[in-house]
Amino acid sequence: MDRLKSKIRDIPDFPKPGIIFKDITPLVKDPAALRYAVHQLLHPFLDRNITAIAGMEARGFIFGSLVAWELGLPFIPLRKPGKLPYDVQSVSYDLEYGSAALEAHIDAFETGDRVLLIDDLLATGGTAKASCELVEKLGAKVAACAFIVELDFLEGREKLKDYEVYSLLHF
Amino acid sequence: MDRLKSKIRDIPDFPKPGIIFKDITPLVKDPAALRYAVHQLLHPFLDRNITAIAGMEARGFIFGSLVAWELGLPFIPLRKPGKLPYDVQSVSYDLEYGSAALEAHIDAFETGDRVLLIDDLLATGGTAKASCELVEKLGAKVAACAFIVELDFLEGREKLKDYEVYSLLHF
Repeated sequence: MDRLKSKIRDIPDFPKPGIIFKDITPLVKDPAALRYAVHQLLHPFLDRNITAIAGMEARGFIFGSLVAWELGLPFIPLRKPGKLPYDVQSVSYDLEYGSAALEAHIDAFETGDRVLLIDDLLATGGTAKASCELVEKLGAKVAACAFIVELDFLEGREKLKDYEVYSLLHF
Repeated sequence: MDRLKSKIRDIPDFPKPGIIFKDITPLVKDPAALRYAVHQLLHPFLDRNITAIAGMEARGFIFGSLVAWELGLPFIPLRKPGKLPYDVQSVSYDLEYGSAALEAHIDAFETGDRVLLIDDLLATGGTAKASCELVEKLGAKVAACAFIVELDFLEGREKLKDYEVYSLLHF
C-alpha cells in the first residue's frame, strides 16, 4: 500500500490555509495503480451479496462507476442539489459553515437493494452519513461504505458507527 | 442502438420549461447496457494511438473513467473552477446566460499526449469546445471528442468543426 500511497499527492493550504488536501489525480492518471486500487477496494465485498453501487458527486463517480463496472452492478449517482432531472429524494447535512444536500432519483434503488457506497475520501463523515440516510430513505440497505482514503484524525468513522466502513489507505 | 436509446430517459421541462433533458441514469443503472455503450464508444479509437482520456465534470467522469479503464489509459478530470487542488490552467466560455469555466491541473497531460475527450452529451458544444482548448493550452493534442448522446438539432458539432466528433446515439 505504500506504493499506492505515493499516488496520493499532498496539496498544502487547499481549499483553505492549514488544510492538507489529498489529491487523487495522480492515482487516476496511473492505470496500473488505479486498477490495483479499485480491485483492492472491491475485494472485501465480493461475497457480500451487494446489488448496487452508489457514488457521491463528483470524485465518487470515478471510483464508484469503476467498482460497479468490475462487479457488473448498477451504478447510482448521488448528486448535489438541482442536478438530477427526475423526481428526487434529498438529505441535508451540516458543514463547518452552512449546509449541503445530496439527492438521488426516487427510482434509483430497487426494494431490497444492498448498497455499497463508494467515495474517494472519508474526512469528517458528513457527506457519507448523509449518503447512507439517502439510501435508506429510498428503501434500500447500506451494506457498507468504502473509501480510497481515510483521514483517521478527523474521526469520520465515528459518524458512521452504525455502518461497516472500509478504507484502503489511512493517513 | 434502439435498445440502447431506450436507456436514455426524456425528462420534460428540466432544467427549465421547454427543455427535454436526456437522463442517462437508466443507462448507468443497467450493467449490460452500460458495458455495450462504453465498448461501442471506445471502439472507433482502438487503433488511433490515444494516450489519455479526459472527462468533463460530472457525468463525463463516469463514462470517461470507464473508457480509460477499458483502454488502460490515464484518466484526466476536467473540473469546474475551484475544485482541483494543485496549480491549474483554465478556460472560460459563454453560456446562454453568463459564463462558465473548466480547469485542469497544469501537469495533467504529457507532452505529445493524444487525448480522447469523453462526455455524456453533446448539446450546444460550449463545454466541449472549452475542453478542447484546455487540452491544447496544456500542450496536448485533441485526437477526438466522443459522446454517448448528441442532440443534433443544437448543432454543437458546428462548434467542434476543427475536431473529430463521434456520438453513439443521435436525437
